[in-house]
Amino acid sequence: MNSFTILKMLNHSKSGKFQKLIMLPGPTNVPIEVVEAMTSPIIGHRTNDFSSLMDKVVHKGNILFECDENIVILTASGTAAVEASITNILRKGDKAIVTVCGEFGSRVSEQISGVGASPIQLVADYGDYPSLSDLERALETNPDTKAVYIVTNETSSGAMCNWLKEAGDLTSKYGAFLVADAISNWGADKMPLRDYNIDCIDTCSQKSIAAPPGLALISISTKYKDQIFKDQQKLHFLNLPRYIEFFDKKSQTPFTPALPLYFALDKAFDLMLDEGMDDRYVRHEYCGKAFYDAFEAMGLKLFGVQEVRSNTVISVAYPDGIKDKDFRSSLETQYGVVIAGGFGDYAGKLFRIGSLGIVNQYHVLTTISAIGNNLRRLGFNANLDFALDAAMKNLKNIRSKL
Amino acid sequence: MNSFTILKMLNHSKSGKFQKLIMLPGPTNVPIEVVEAMTSPIIGHRTNDFSSLMDKVVHKGNILFECDENIVILTASGTAAVEASITNILRKGDKAIVTVCGEFGSRVSEQISGVGASPIQLVADYGDYPSLSDLERALETNPDTKAVYIVTNETSSGAMCNWLKEAGDLTSKYGAFLVADAISNWGADKMPLRDYNIDCIDTCSQKSIAAPPGLALISISTKYKDQIFKDQQKLHFLNLPRYIEFFDKKSQTPFTPALPLYFALDKAFDLMLDEGMDDRYVRHEYCGKAFYDAFEAMGLKLFGVQEVRSNTVISVAYPDGIKDKDFRSSLETQYGVVIAGGFGDYAGKLFRIGSLGIVNQYHVLTTISAIGNNLRRLGFNANLDFALDAAMKNLKNIRSKL
Repeated sequence: MNSFTILKMLNHSKSGKFQKLIMLPGPTNVPIEVVEAMTSPIIGHRTNDFSSLMDKVVHKGNILFECDENIVILTASGTAAVEASITNILRKGDKAIVTVCGEFGSRVSEQISGVGASPIQLVADYGDYPSLSDLERALETNPDTKAVYIVTNETSSGAMCNWLKEAGDLTSKYGAFLVADAISNWGADKMPLRDYNIDCIDTCSQKSIAAPPGLALISISTKYKDQIFKDQQKLHFLNLPRYIEFFDKKSQTPFTPALPLYFALDKAFDLMLDEGMDDRYVRHEYCGKAFYDAFEAMGLKLFGVQEVRSNTVISVAYPDGIKDKDFRSSLETQYGVVIAGGFGDYAGKLFRIGSLGIVNQYHVLTTISAIGNNLRRLGFNANLDFALDAAMKNLKNIRSKL
Repeated sequence: MNSFTILKMLNHSKSGKFQKLIMLPGPTNVPIEVVEAMTSPIIGHRTNDFSSLMDKVVHKGNILFECDENIVILTASGTAAVEASITNILRKGDKAIVTVCGEFGSRVSEQISGVGASPIQLVADYGDYPSLSDLERALETNPDTKAVYIVTNETSSGAMCNWLKEAGDLTSKYGAFLVADAISNWGADKMPLRDYNIDCIDTCSQKSIAAPPGLALISISTKYKDQIFKDQQKLHFLNLPRYIEFFDKKSQTPFTPALPLYFALDKAFDLMLDEGMDDRYVRHEYCGKAFYDAFEAMGLKLFGVQEVRSNTVISVAYPDGIKDKDFRSSLETQYGVVIAGGFGDYAGKLFRIGSLGIVNQYHVLTTISAIGNNLRRLGFNANLDFALDAAMKNLKNIRSKL
């Protein structure tokens, strides 16, 4: 990070309006080059211009996902990617294992039920994560499981799966498909599709990719591809074989794509390739650690079980007497920093920070300072000096020149 | 139209690249204010900022659609809107009538089959359109029809339904739902939801609305709303009750919205309201007529049956000896005008012009001139003077100051 980056951030908005610091678990801060890419001239989606753009984007995506088959891009939100990874492969009566330890795992389970399949839930408390041995037992008991759905990072609580690689080996032993709902940590945490034996990864544009929301991305294995062609789903919009065939034939999408977002994605992929995925994972890891260490040093209690703490979604319990609504709204209006609250039963009890996308030293230190100052103003004796020191110790491990 | 508008068009691209004239049946030319709106600062979709934006957009949409229920906006392409209007209401074994006279009617029919319902097709030749009496007979024979799907403007051939109002009266007599797949002519041709007894209108952002592609819009009647809540579909992404409930509760979307496109849609709706829908319909009607009369005056043969000619998609047969690929690619590279070709069996036999969105005198005359000149260059003796005169006679009926 350098002063130019800060300048880019502060002047980010092309509309002339003040761009707040978006420290949400998506959408994230979007680099100005990516915002500008959206204003590229409108082109027809049945033209060579669009085919060239698609070829570039898919080629770059294939490198980033480390997959053998072409990635599929849907003009839709992440929920559509997850739904596609269910409707394309599960049929009535099928068994599917799913990790459930928060809002998004529950949704996947509902979607599995929605196609008439039976979800076998690996449940953990909110803030905790199911274990690899939970998966082992479930597969032993249900060797006829068709697919295993792992919400790799439970955005609602800030708990992540730290046994994804092992799940790939295990699942493929049973001949089941491994689907990673990696909406909020693909691109931040390592998960090479081919090497980890993953059959399908779902993510979307507004998380670690740091593009605006509106595109859903799906990367699949050859085994998964063969299956979805063999038993093709009946509807159109989330029908992955239609997307794959159309791309193979024309390097286009079967349905009209959100053009400005494709231009943005192309630029965002460039920035990811420039940084390098390994450096990117390190950056996310140490920005996350910087937040955790800083909040503990500040005197706050982290939410969730230490071993499964997410690198990208930082959950922190409110100290007594701090009201969520007051805290977050003054943080936004007085410091220009936007963070998220808790979900469901945990609304009001914790705040969540999205530490992903282009997050770097600038974002981390600004956010910690704003939170520390705001807590002090509201009567909590936050130790800001300790917090910033603790953050800095981690941040110096970042290698990316972002 | 004035010189300022031309200037705005020519300088449209914010990226500095040359903006071609996009005379496609979507995406269309996008006004610069709408392009710029996409660069508004990123905001959280669970914040009051987004709720305010949503409230504004939905309120404006309700005025434009002339409906009683709030419009629903999906982050998706138009195909998703049509699919939602099928999956939310049709169940296995249901009967649904559908107009089929081109690619898009065939798709709707397939999607109806996709949910296990039975499509009853009202078929017409390519370039023609089924008649109101076809619908009458089908309803008489199948009084238990659950819904009637009318592709109000068959984009692939340029044929439109000119009995939509009558279809509303007739369909409601049978207690069936009337769904208008109005992707390529809502906002260009009059179809007030309430007054025409329509139960559902599907359209999307990149057609007559003249915003970039990526949003699908659905307007529904109270009767349709009651039904989709009574018998709610199982999946999430196209589940309209989820969108309606979330908007009622929080003025937000259940799944992450494509924020930049919402800012763009808000601005595009402003421009529609400024113009006024009646003037907008007149503008589309006379721009369409200008094209038709000009091409006939030029010595070309129009494609399709006169009585059902679309106001927004102008189909013209190629004269002997003019090759589609040469013609359209030189039109694009030498004149900067992008038009579409024919679909399926009609590929190579006709060209199609999208005359919708912000189309005005400038677009019509520039396109006619470019086409006439290009035809002459390729050996067809186009009478350009006659063509421009014929166009002008129609264009003077336009009242909009665009």
